[in-house]
Amino acid sequence: MVRVVKTKVEIEGRVHEETVVVEKEEPQPWQEDHDFVCVGKPVDRVDGPARVTGAAKFTYDIHPAGMLYAAVLRSPHPHARITTLDTSHAEKLPGVRAVISRQTAPDIPWYGGASNLFDQVVRFVGDEVAAVAADDLDTARDALKLIRVEYEPLPFITDIEEALSPGAPDVQPRGNILREDDGQGGELYSRGDLQKAFNSADVIVESTYKTSTQMHNSLETHGAVVMWEGDELTVWESTQYIYGVRHRVASVLKMPESKVHVISEYMGGGFGSKGGTLKQTIIAALLAKAAGRPIKLMLTRTEENLLAGNRGATVQKIKLGAKRDGTLTAIDLEVLNGIGIYGAWSAAVAGPAKELYKCPNVRTHTIGVHTNLGTHSAFRAPGFVEGTFALESAVDELCQKLGMDPLAFRRKNHADKDQLADQDYSSKQLLQCHEVAAEQLGLDPRSPLPTPGSLASDPPWKRGIGIASQIWSGGGGPPAHALVRLNSDGTAEVQCGTHDIGTGAKTALSQIVAEELGVPLQAVRFRLGDTESGPYAPASMGSMTMPSVGPAVRSAAEDARQQLMEIASYFMEVPSSHLLVANGAVTIEGKAESRRLIRDILAEISDYMITGKGFRGPNPRQTLRTWGAQIAEVEVNTATGQVRVTRLSAVHDVGRVINPKGLRSQFYGGILQGIGFGLLEERIVDHRTGHPLNPNLEEYRLPTIADAPEMFASGIDKADILANHVGSKGAGEPPIIPTAAAIANAIYNAVGVRMRELPITPRRILDALAQNAPQERQS
Amino acid sequence: MVRVVKTKVEIEGRVHEETVVVEKEEPQPWQEDHDFVCVGKPVDRVDGPARVTGAAKFTYDIHPAGMLYAAVLRSPHPHARITTLDTSHAEKLPGVRAVISRQTAPDIPWYGGASNLFDQVVRFVGDEVAAVAADDLDTARDALKLIRVEYEPLPFITDIEEALSPGAPDVQPRGNILREDDGQGGELYSRGDLQKAFNSADVIVESTYKTSTQMHNSLETHGAVVMWEGDELTVWESTQYIYGVRHRVASVLKMPESKVHVISEYMGGGFGSKGGTLKQTIIAALLAKAAGRPIKLMLTRTEENLLAGNRGATVQKIKLGAKRDGTLTAIDLEVLNGIGIYGAWSAAVAGPAKELYKCPNVRTHTIGVHTNLGTHSAFRAPGFVEGTFALESAVDELCQKLGMDPLAFRRKNHADKDQLADQDYSSKQLLQCHEVAAEQLGLDPRSPLPTPGSLASDPPWKRGIGIASQIWSGGGGPPAHALVRLNSDGTAEVQCGTHDIGTGAKTALSQIVAEELGVPLQAVRFRLGDTESGPYAPASMGSMTMPSVGPAVRSAAEDARQQLMEIASYFMEVPSSHLLVANGAVTIEGKAESRRLIRDILAEISDYMITGKGFRGPNPRQTLRTWGAQIAEVEVNTATGQVRVTRLSAVHDVGRVINPKGLRSQFYGGILQGIGFGLLEERIVDHRTGHPLNPNLEEYRLPTIADAPEMFASGIDKADILANHVGSKGAGEPPIIPTAAAIANAIYNAVGVRMRELPITPRRILDALAQNAPQERQS
Repeated sequence: MVRVVKTKVEIEGRVHEETVVVEKEEPQPWQEDHDFVCVGKPVDRVDGPARVTGAAKFTYDIHPAGMLYAAVLRSPHPHARITTLDTSHAEKLPGVRAVISRQTAPDIPWYGGASNLFDQVVRFVGDEVAAVAADDLDTARDALKLIRVEYEPLPFITDIEEALSPGAPDVQPRGNILREDDGQGGELYSRGDLQKAFNSADVIVESTYKTSTQMHNSLETHGAVVMWEGDELTVWESTQYIYGVRHRVASVLKMPESKVHVISEYMGGGFGSKGGTLKQTIIAALLAKAAGRPIKLMLTRTEENLLAGNRGATVQKIKLGAKRDGTLTAIDLEVLNGIGIYGAWSAAVAGPAKELYKCPNVRTHTIGVHTNLGTHSAFRAPGFVEGTFALESAVDELCQKLGMDPLAFRRKNHADKDQLADQDYSSKQLLQCHEVAAEQLGLDPRSPLPTPGSLASDPPWKRGIGIASQIWSGGGGPPAHALVRLNSDGTAEVQCGTHDIGTGAKTALSQIVAEELGVPLQAVRFRLGDTESGPYAPASMGSMTMPSVGPAVRSAAEDARQQLMEIASYFMEVPSSHLLVANGAVTIEGKAESRRLIRDILAEISDYMITGKGFRGPNPRQTLRTWGAQIAEVEVNTATGQVRVTRLSAVHDVGRVINPKGLRSQFYGGILQGIGFGLLEERIVDHRTGHPLNPNLEEYRLPTIADAPEMFASGIDKADILANHVGSKGAGEPPIIPTAAAIANAIYNAVGVRMRELPITPRRILDALAQNAPQERQS
Repeated sequence: MVRVVKTKVEIEGRVHEETVVVEKEEPQPWQEDHDFVCVGKPVDRVDGPARVTGAAKFTYDIHPAGMLYAAVLRSPHPHARITTLDTSHAEKLPGVRAVISRQTAPDIPWYGGASNLFDQVVRFVGDEVAAVAADDLDTARDALKLIRVEYEPLPFITDIEEALSPGAPDVQPRGNILREDDGQGGELYSRGDLQKAFNSADVIVESTYKTSTQMHNSLETHGAVVMWEGDELTVWESTQYIYGVRHRVASVLKMPESKVHVISEYMGGGFGSKGGTLKQTIIAALLAKAAGRPIKLMLTRTEENLLAGNRGATVQKIKLGAKRDGTLTAIDLEVLNGIGIYGAWSAAVAGPAKELYKCPNVRTHTIGVHTNLGTHSAFRAPGFVEGTFALESAVDELCQKLGMDPLAFRRKNHADKDQLADQDYSSKQLLQCHEVAAEQLGLDPRSPLPTPGSLASDPPWKRGIGIASQIWSGGGGPPAHALVRLNSDGTAEVQCGTHDIGTGAKTALSQIVAEELGVPLQAVRFRLGDTESGPYAPASMGSMTMPSVGPAVRSAAEDARQQLMEIASYFMEVPSSHLLVANGAVTIEGKAESRRLIRDILAEISDYMITGKGFRGPNPRQTLRTWGAQIAEVEVNTATGQVRVTRLSAVHDVGRVINPKGLRSQFYGGILQGIGFGLLEERIVDHRTGHPLNPNLEEYRLPTIADAPEMFASGIDKADILANHVGSKGAGEPPIIPTAAAIANAIYNAVGVRMRELPITPRRILDALAQNAPQERQS
């Protein structure tokens, strides 16, 4: 039976107090000395062959019979009032099956009521104006050109600092500043006495850091295929949260949830922007209703980059104070965060400043700023990536000024407990992360890191090394449910409404089931991404999948195993407590000759299919965090400004490692995306026209394999058995967090210039080098 | 947790002793005084709109992208050896994508090893020779004509009596007589001392009855759409048993069950022949593998009637003995049952003779006879329909000879207990069925039925009335499983691997869930027919669905309700035992003002989806049976021989009635099919060529609505709470069982001729009338 409990769950850097229902009994944690057969072994992805052969069906591959293609007419203006909208010519184009706009679509509030499905006032380039469904995509796009729209342009702003200037026009109905929990605009946090701390500090550093807008650019764009069957709707969507889509679609279209069926079996990458439901899914559903045919509506790459979310730019003014001995005493952080036209949160940028170091006096103030650009969204460790760049760069500045080794500084200012909640961490192996990260590069972790300019290099290249630490949530929490079925042939099927967004979750979760149930990994078939099969699992974001769903599938497998043991006990005529199961067979403890295959035992009974039901229990009192450290080695070309990351050592504490091969792959991906954030990626906007200039893959600079350093990536494989009984924390986001800061610190270490604006392009390097000497004199 | 038990389950008239696994706790039975909100109310089919608008997707409607069409080359000979088989020309036809035959297909034993997927010796007209997959069906059929086959014809037999004649050639490798459990051929049962009983009987009747081969003619023919995705196979099939198909496909193709996915969400009727897996499903899977494309292979109507099963003809020699006072003392039954080329059972024909009446001395001998015709299959109450015609006709003959009222005879020889197992019945309302059946026609059940020739009529028509009783299993049993999910908006989803083969099962099962969970019927979405969602449920045959799956879904709903009550208890701050739930709201007992909607309670918690898990418990010690009586009123045209059934009263004891509307619809369908069996339907074979002559809907005479009498159909709505906690038994098969016998008895009652061969065509009536006078003199 069940009980109701209150528990804290931190998702994407934001803490939620949740009232959840959990079942009464959970399995015992796997201890460190558990004799693992499958967990902890490096295995290939169970869905690898399907993915590389093209057999895997992504949303883009879904083609119900009679399917139409849809396209959306979007605003070419950053801010304008629609004065005329005439779709009649489009409707008459042969092959066009439905046209909708605000004239015909129901009134559906969006973005918390600040917008509608179709607005009369469009507020960014890419805003929805009308949509067409036609026999093919070319016809749909031709029809868009036949829609006559007249706009009355309105004043617009696309720069966050300009949006705050006095007399700036409102970019949206609620103004230009996000009203967060202080009720005034911005989120304010403080502890201790900041002024006093700075007054008594021996050393102070103060700088402003800037990060640019980073685009997700998942391989598969957002999109959906929708199909009505009577009053029931099936939605194939490239999403990180099938139940979220189901809930949104059902509530917006005023349907019972039970009649909306959302499928996302394979999806081509999601870094947070696919955690919500965008307007086009509803537009597709309305078009499908109007046309009486299934609809495919996938965003183009340009649409994706105009409207489907981004990591908003930041301006971070940070000031640190310390004692002469290196004790950190004060942190002050002021953040402007570009959240686009309708963003609704920004405080996460301050997360690292609040918690990464032991520091009694902290103040952070985060202001979300609206502009006439597409709404931001969660993006792989949102806020923490940006905040860590500023904090860890500033810490490096502080270390330089103190003349202190960065490793020694980190040991000295290590936070033993959560200073916000005043409680223990469930686990924290951050100091080991520093040590192993150094060791992986052949450095002695007990010795100081090489000082600036000390590494040998060949002109015009200069070599440097930099370190940055990482804190992030990733502890997951309830609710998450799973079912494990054991077929009569000894194969198992897992049902869980989770997703594998490219992370390898399906593989690692299958390993957990195989381990607990006692069957070979190949005997496990993991079915996910389907609300019809379910059961409920949370969004696959916030590094939550392993710590939330892992315990649920293990719990279901344990339930199934216990049932199997009771059945085996009947036929093998010993109490179930005397039985062991592994690799598809049951054995009486100490009697190897008693071994019977599971399928032979199940052949004795009639068609029974064992179903084990599992759930995720409540979180403990302790604070759940992931930790990590990265050390970057870079070479900077002092003649061209080019930076190349030559080696990068990443070590993260994400609890028990289920699949070391999958974990490494996650780390590689995070590091590479961190390199993009640090050195390459930047949405460029023409502020005179309000148009993003590079919403595509030709001009937007994504890192490629040619940008990859030699990577040393590993997890501290120590189970966090307080966090959950599997002992794992999430690994998706940690590896992107410290990369840019480590690189910037390594650049300083190489050439003595402090790069305070991302991305660190050759132009900026050359500019900084040119200003280097006077800068040095000032300090 | 679970336990292993042994229990008896009777399916299609055959008893199975099953070792099953059940969970430990079952809900309490719904008592007679339970205050029902939804159960017992007449409701429309929940899937009615989808079925009548064409929105429902049957197997025939499935069209995966790239799908090919397949056709099968079939033997034109009733028995022949293939001497030459050359598919090369077919393979070269443009548009042909794959050809398989015994030259290329793997060796797959079929029919218990008596056959292979493709045989070198074909043994009936329609036997599989080769198969082609092509871009369209016309090309596939054209390709069949290009396959060159030469046959060496072999001796064949298509008449069951001829098959037993001395020196008859073997029609198949195992000979012409089915070896059943006596090891010799035939199934022999006896109790008491038959010879002694006949010696001391005052009255004896002895006759031979014949029934013809009846074809199923479900609206949708057998067929499958199959699709490989990597090493996984999806099969959409028009089947009554998705898990049976999965098991067969997996074992035949040597695949893990977890990689075979079988779907049958909607299917166009099944009367037993769709309980197994026919060769064409495997042929389709092999073609799909060879072509690398999905395949649709649906049987044509002719193929369906040649090979997909039938109710085999019978010759039944029956002898009854009785005391002068009407006490039945002896029954002797000798049955020949045409089971086609590979049939494997026949004993069910003797079922009614063994058990319908109290009789101490019984002998039955059933011989299954093979011929060179398509294999028989289960067909709505297989055996019992045929056996009841002979038994109840003979009982009517006995009553006439005794000068005894048929109702009085039935009261006198009522069996109070199961004479085979020497134990009680869980429930038996047969006497009430007789009474209500009479009352529905305005007759006084305590008075004798009208005697032959006593009813007024207008020449050349003569009117008569006849009665027949029914016994059948229909008690169901484990294993069956279900899941019930409660969404946060208060809607519920049921998952169950059962089927609605047109019976209305989905509706009645939804009513059970709505009742137990306390939500409106419209809030219940019932998902079935998908092995991926599951969980396991048995074949939808043997009138098992309600008694097997009903308790499973109720048990799952109860589990979900209890969880809801615990959650509500937390928020409403009273113990859960004080709470009531109905119609989507929870109320504290006696406090109407405390009423809170389920969705409002669930809104207090985070995304929790209650999942209730349910199962079907073991059967009780008692024997489970359904009972019934039908009284037919007919008019016989003495000039033309035409028989019209004018009124038919059907009353069956199927336990608690969940949906009176659905039940009536089942009864109507059974009666109409019984009329077809009695008056119209007959497979006609040209015994000189071995060819069935009417395997189609033009020449095979199915009843239509023009043949429907005024029908009075009802259930004795008395819960059988010993059988299971829902109290229902199965209703699908009972109504077809007594119809033909009641009609034949009514014809005797009208015109004084005993019709001993089905169907009772005008020709046979006229022949009998012509022989009537001398017959009467003989007796």
